[in-house]
Amino acid sequence: MERVIGIDPGSRVTGYGVIDSAPGGLHFVACGTIKTTVKAPFSHRLNEIFDGINEVIQLHGPAVAAVEDVFLASNPRSALKLGHARGAAVVAAMQNGLVVHDYSPRAVKQAVAGYGQAEKSQVQHMVRVLLALSASPSSDAADALAVAICHANRLFV
Amino acid sequence: MERVIGIDPGSRVTGYGVIDSAPGGLHFVACGTIKTTVKAPFSHRLNEIFDGINEVIQLHGPAVAAVEDVFLASNPRSALKLGHARGAAVVAAMQNGLVVHDYSPRAVKQAVAGYGQAEKSQVQHMVRVLLALSASPSSDAADALAVAICHANRLFV
Repeated sequence: MERVIGIDPGSRVTGYGVIDSAPGGLHFVACGTIKTTVKAPFSHRLNEIFDGINEVIQLHGPAVAAVEDVFLASNPRSALKLGHARGAAVVAAMQNGLVVHDYSPRAVKQAVAGYGQAEKSQVQHMVRVLLALSASPSSDAADALAVAICHANRLFV
Repeated sequence: MERVIGIDPGSRVTGYGVIDSAPGGLHFVACGTIKTTVKAPFSHRLNEIFDGINEVIQLHGPAVAAVEDVFLASNPRSALKLGHARGAAVVAAMQNGLVVHDYSPRAVKQAVAGYGQAEKSQVQHMVRVLLALSASPSSDAADALAVAICHANRLFV
């Protein structure tokens, strides 16, 4: 059994999802979002991402982190901002001693929906089905759970 | 008197420079570079930046961090990488309770060399003069000291 935290980083909203992965199947543990204070300085918002991920890891004790690669924005300014957010999240995982794996958005969609170009709503639906959840998680939390599932699928293939 | 750490983040080399800023003048405390392990996974290298900045802060106890804004690369891939590195450095300062200020490369060059388009060698030279150093610091350390000087100059104007 391995506990995996999936992280979908963003400067406004960072999604996280924790699952247990065992040969018998996947089990949902927790999911949610870290929303940064929109009007706060950017450094403060990065710190909120670090603190948020740190808190989730301390609470649920995953051994491994799977972090979604930032979709390569055409705009260097957006790429720069997303890079900061992702850096804060990765460092929070590393500081807790987790091994960090990166997965492209395409690989994540392929893993949960069987199709690299799947829509967000499809990902949400498939995450719900694969983890036997009674309701659909928010889009950002679903994306994070999908990254965790993507990693878990690689464990037992 | 205020102790300032200047940081010039980069995914390969992150420069740092610590100075004391007082109404009477600027005093050099320390400077150096954090070189990340080129062949290591990117997450590991980000963690090295975090650990390196953390160590310098713990050793020298600055109250404030001045971090150079990333020069906006024309290439989104470079911007993304630099964003990660800068995010790791900023979060290391924030986790130590420092106030973080951002300065553009232009403002930094203007502050130490009186000219926003100054060459790297000019910045190195002026940092040496302004801090009465017996030798020129490396280019990355000089850039970091320049950021700290840029912040210090704003304190007493």
